[in-house]
Amino acid sequence: MLTKSQIKLITSLKQKKFRIQHQLFVVEGVKVVQEFLNSNYELVAIFAVEDRYSQYNQKFTLVDSKELAKISGFSTPNKVLATFKIPSSLAVNWSSLTVALDGINDPGNLGTIIRLCDWFGIEDLVCSEDTVDCYNSKVVQASMGSHTRVNITYVDLKKTLSTVSNCMGTFMDGISIYNQTLPKTGVIVLGNEANGISENIESLINLRLSIPRFGKLKQTESLNVANAAAIVLSEFKRNLTET
Amino acid sequence: MLTKSQIKLITSLKQKKFRIQHQLFVVEGVKVVQEFLNSNYELVAIFAVEDRYSQYNQKFTLVDSKELAKISGFSTPNKVLATFKIPSSLAVNWSSLTVALDGINDPGNLGTIIRLCDWFGIEDLVCSEDTVDCYNSKVVQASMGSHTRVNITYVDLKKTLSTVSNCMGTFMDGISIYNQTLPKTGVIVLGNEANGISENIESLINLRLSIPRFGKLKQTESLNVANAAAIVLSEFKRNLTET
Repeated sequence: MLTKSQIKLITSLKQKKFRIQHQLFVVEGVKVVQEFLNSNYELVAIFAVEDRYSQYNQKFTLVDSKELAKISGFSTPNKVLATFKIPSSLAVNWSSLTVALDGINDPGNLGTIIRLCDWFGIEDLVCSEDTVDCYNSKVVQASMGSHTRVNITYVDLKKTLSTVSNCMGTFMDGISIYNQTLPKTGVIVLGNEANGISENIESLINLRLSIPRFGKLKQTESLNVANAAAIVLSEFKRNLTET
Repeated sequence: MLTKSQIKLITSLKQKKFRIQHQLFVVEGVKVVQEFLNSNYELVAIFAVEDRYSQYNQKFTLVDSKELAKISGFSTPNKVLATFKIPSSLAVNWSSLTVALDGINDPGNLGTIIRLCDWFGIEDLVCSEDTVDCYNSKVVQASMGSHTRVNITYVDLKKTLSTVSNCMGTFMDGISIYNQTLPKTGVIVLGNEANGISENIESLINLRLSIPRFGKLKQTESLNVANAAAIVLSEFKRNLTET
């Protein structure tokens, strides 16, 4: 049975200001909730239409599907919804390969980039303060649980990157990423969906790369930022595999 | 001024059955509409809040923003909406590198894959009949005009691929795509978001590839299909660039 105050609290977490105020975020769906339960994230409450979470004792509330629909952000709620504490970020390990995001707006793009970082073993994802909040529920769902394996930190990106020696980014006029010996450490900067890397960050970049285009016409739109990230991360990592 | 029958026709095009019945689809937004206007697609009608399309004479209707909102699929309509004829597909050129989709459900994924094909100079995209309709408005918007440079064909995929000699796909247990000399021609098959390549298509694949994973934990979710497509297409094309 859900109380009114539970419903009010959980639905308020759709807004960033309430996530910050309560230091809580929402995870939905059996698979993704399980990833967070298996991780170091601290469970606060779990609401499910079946009994399989009763091991969480007083944190667990059995609900019916109507109740779940009241708190879910999904049009078709998926059996379980949980709230977790927002953890503190760990210190960034600048001596490995790191990804920095400069104003990513789209929650799906951020979620997909977190998933890519996880796939490619990038442990630190550094975001500018104007990047969409990583505890936005759409980001959490798109990352498919990869949140639990990537340390995400929001920073003043210009200030932070000013202290880092090896900043790289992709530009239309950069050197082909296929022909360049890519370093094993440094920061790969990915820019905003519409405007790319901002001017004040661009000045900090010392390796300008590009992803070659093969289409016949010059007017082909730029690649989606998550796809560009996929290609760039694959290029940085492919040389680390044995041949 | 919009007529009731125009509103009825255009809003009906959100459904595939009416797109098929009328052989029409909707494009929205200044940038994407312009891509279609610059292409071989046949314009049927164009509705805009400003006069810049008056060269299209009787096909052009000046509307106000309230009228545009009535026909738009966007929550914030973007100045112009146009309808175009659905073209016939051209014959597939099997002697080049082609992409085949086996049951892609998500419109955003299909749109992004069309954009990737355009970027990487893939001229033919062959889709199974259960792949989402490429004239779905979300696909059109996500492809950012790349529709106009990629020939998209819906086929009985099993029957079609049975006649093709070189079918390739990615699997968890395939050979690393980084260590394999990839052919310049053939068909790259991409599978459904949840289930991957279906069994009856898998049996037709003679080169099983995989994208290596670098994350520390084995439970990392598979890559999003559009990101996998980005990495695979980049690998197939990277060797064609001069070093």
